[in-house]
Amino acid sequence: MQPLPGFRDFLPQDCAARNYIFDRWREVARRYGFVEWDGPVLEPTDLYTKKSGAEIVTQLFNFTDKGEREVAMRPELTPTLARVVAAHEREFKKPLKWFSIPQCFRYEKQQRGRLREHFQFNADIIGEDSLDADVELIALCVDLLRAFGFAANDFVVRVSDREFWIDFLRTQNVPEENWQEILQIIDRSEREPREKTAVKLGPLAEPAFKILDGKGGSEKLDRVLAALRVRGLADFVEIDLGIVRGLAYYSGVVFEAFDRGGKLRALAGGGRYDNLIAQLSDGAVSLPALGFAMGDVVLGELIGETQAAREKLGTAIATEQNLDIYIVIAKEERRADALAKIQALRDRGYRVDYSLTAAKVGKQFQTAEQLGARVAILFGDEWPQVRVKTLASREEQLIGNEEMLAYLASLPSLSSRAERSDVEGPRGSTDR
Amino acid sequence: MQPLPGFRDFLPQDCAARNYIFDRWREVARRYGFVEWDGPVLEPTDLYTKKSGAEIVTQLFNFTDKGEREVAMRPELTPTLARVVAAHEREFKKPLKWFSIPQCFRYEKQQRGRLREHFQFNADIIGEDSLDADVELIALCVDLLRAFGFAANDFVVRVSDREFWIDFLRTQNVPEENWQEILQIIDRSEREPREKTAVKLGPLAEPAFKILDGKGGSEKLDRVLAALRVRGLADFVEIDLGIVRGLAYYSGVVFEAFDRGGKLRALAGGGRYDNLIAQLSDGAVSLPALGFAMGDVVLGELIGETQAAREKLGTAIATEQNLDIYIVIAKEERRADALAKIQALRDRGYRVDYSLTAAKVGKQFQTAEQLGARVAILFGDEWPQVRVKTLASREEQLIGNEEMLAYLASLPSLSSRAERSDVEGPRGSTDR
Repeated sequence: MQPLPGFRDFLPQDCAARNYIFDRWREVARRYGFVEWDGPVLEPTDLYTKKSGAEIVTQLFNFTDKGEREVAMRPELTPTLARVVAAHEREFKKPLKWFSIPQCFRYEKQQRGRLREHFQFNADIIGEDSLDADVELIALCVDLLRAFGFAANDFVVRVSDREFWIDFLRTQNVPEENWQEILQIIDRSEREPREKTAVKLGPLAEPAFKILDGKGGSEKLDRVLAALRVRGLADFVEIDLGIVRGLAYYSGVVFEAFDRGGKLRALAGGGRYDNLIAQLSDGAVSLPALGFAMGDVVLGELIGETQAAREKLGTAIATEQNLDIYIVIAKEERRADALAKIQALRDRGYRVDYSLTAAKVGKQFQTAEQLGARVAILFGDEWPQVRVKTLASREEQLIGNEEMLAYLASLPSLSSRAERSDVEGPRGSTDR
Repeated sequence: MQPLPGFRDFLPQDCAARNYIFDRWREVARRYGFVEWDGPVLEPTDLYTKKSGAEIVTQLFNFTDKGEREVAMRPELTPTLARVVAAHEREFKKPLKWFSIPQCFRYEKQQRGRLREHFQFNADIIGEDSLDADVELIALCVDLLRAFGFAANDFVVRVSDREFWIDFLRTQNVPEENWQEILQIIDRSEREPREKTAVKLGPLAEPAFKILDGKGGSEKLDRVLAALRVRGLADFVEIDLGIVRGLAYYSGVVFEAFDRGGKLRALAGGGRYDNLIAQLSDGAVSLPALGFAMGDVVLGELIGETQAAREKLGTAIATEQNLDIYIVIAKEERRADALAKIQALRDRGYRVDYSLTAAKVGKQFQTAEQLGARVAILFGDEWPQVRVKTLASREEQLIGNEEMLAYLASLPSLSSRAERSDVEGPRGSTDR
């Protein structure tokens, strides 16, 4: 009766919440000129080990398929992006601004905010060196979160610069083979006692703490912040050199989004990875690139904890699920007339439902309310007139069946829906 | 560089086509009062063997996960539906009208119209005995296909009755253990020479052919057809007792949709399966049910072969991908002013893009055209006025920067987009 551990069933309410999240992601990404793409859920396992090393396999849903191929359910989208871009980049003008909403899978211990599957918004800009691309991407991250009703006191995007730390390590004469280890120590320093970090960093502790405490930035980060200020987004970002991101392939500006309360995991994270596409395509294609990802699980938790966001979600779920019109069939002799009209109303784009079996009028009105219908139309003794009742105001109007469509089109609460339909009636000219 | 055999990459054009198909499916299902749900991509393997027998495993992407669970990527959604309904049905008023758009996976030989993954629209009505539910479901199937621009000469839904054949087998005194085999012979009879079918059917051939040739129907099917005629949908359906559907669990009206040309696999298929939920839930819950599925691959092929459908698709792809506004930065000194305005325009819901690096004005206008922008706005020497150019008509207007938003809102080609936005400006009252 249960799904597998770490997997979710999406009952209609959950699915409407998921659709709401996806719709906001799509809407905002398109405002920024990003276009959607997607890859397969299943890929060759070595696509992932090539990027992340053999140890990633312990976290994969991987197996041998019936054709003896080593395959894995995607844990992330970036390796697929590199594969697809390497194969097709010549078909597109640069820069590519691409987004996607893949479901990703990891065999991990379940914790708060971490399941074994999640949906992850990905946005990437491929083929652009300019720092303006970094700013564009951070602005997109901010605006995605704003679209859910979050304000500057709900979340913050912390921006850092991987290159700044590489320069630091060079200046300190740290051998290159130790860089990754030290960057990970710095990345984790916020989450552990300073004495512990100091021991790990040794002689690097003093100069590193100086940088971390200054929360100061590089000249590059100052430019990023200034450009975000021009857009009116400065309140949503902070320069924070403590953000390094553990992954080795980041090469420039990196950022992570957090709830201001600091209770949740990161809402989003990403940055510039100029060398990764060349690495993953075995040098076939070399393009500068940057991107970030935002998962649906932590985002959903923050929505649940933030009143303005919760209210927006509630409205969206009702809008997705509610009916426009419920047809009340008071006399079974009128069922055929009602069904002809139901078809005509649905053809015009209205959401219409009715009782599939004979039922008491009172019960039918009750169902109309439960399904969130705005209008109930009663087919009964008054035929060929019908009774149109606006459920919120309880106003009623007796209308000739022939005039009904025009009358409904005049109701402000229903007018938007009818315009949406782009389907001709079933007796359109092409089939008669 | 390639996806696994039978799996698809969705480049932006392909993804827009996929979104178009999903959007039509969602829109029409909601008009019928169906609500969306979903289950996990991965389920215990025995959920599928319980329904389809152990032989299904040869067609599954199945494996042992890291917790020693036997799991499979879903080949279909119905077993998950039975699991979820059995666990949650008490939370919902009957009948449930649920739809879903799962991606499903089968390890099969690739053929035309058959990959190893596809997306499959599913609609099910749970908890309703009435024949009106069967009619409602067939009408939904018709209207889903009509929404893509198909007319009655493009497709037909063939409707049959499994119960009619069961009665026939009873009358002919065929032992119950042979029913499934004979039903499958009848199901396949259209696709093989009659002599071959006759040999297989033996003494049943004569009475069976009589039924198949009559294309006559049961009283039940006459009622279904009459009810579809009331809705104006009779031209899209045919009674055809040759449709039996191979699967053992169908218990009443069954149907399949085909292209009229007869060149493609079935577009959709389903029917009533009143005993399946009880069987799959080990008797925990017993509810009458019916449903059907429509895949995206064959549908996509028919769209490609049908002019009206192809044109609708083309329009939809352009609508999904095209920009509203391209900002041309003619002087780099104006970049900051342009970016402030870009943010304001995006906040109002417009899709806006611009060159991330300095570029020649002519090249920027070229990019505006390529990205399908309706309007280009030039920030240059005329500042604080900007030049607004409608790209289709080549009309130009010099507008004060402060008046620009009002002017754009007055343009018919852009007005719909601005209304869509539901996000306040970044300097809204909550964060300042």
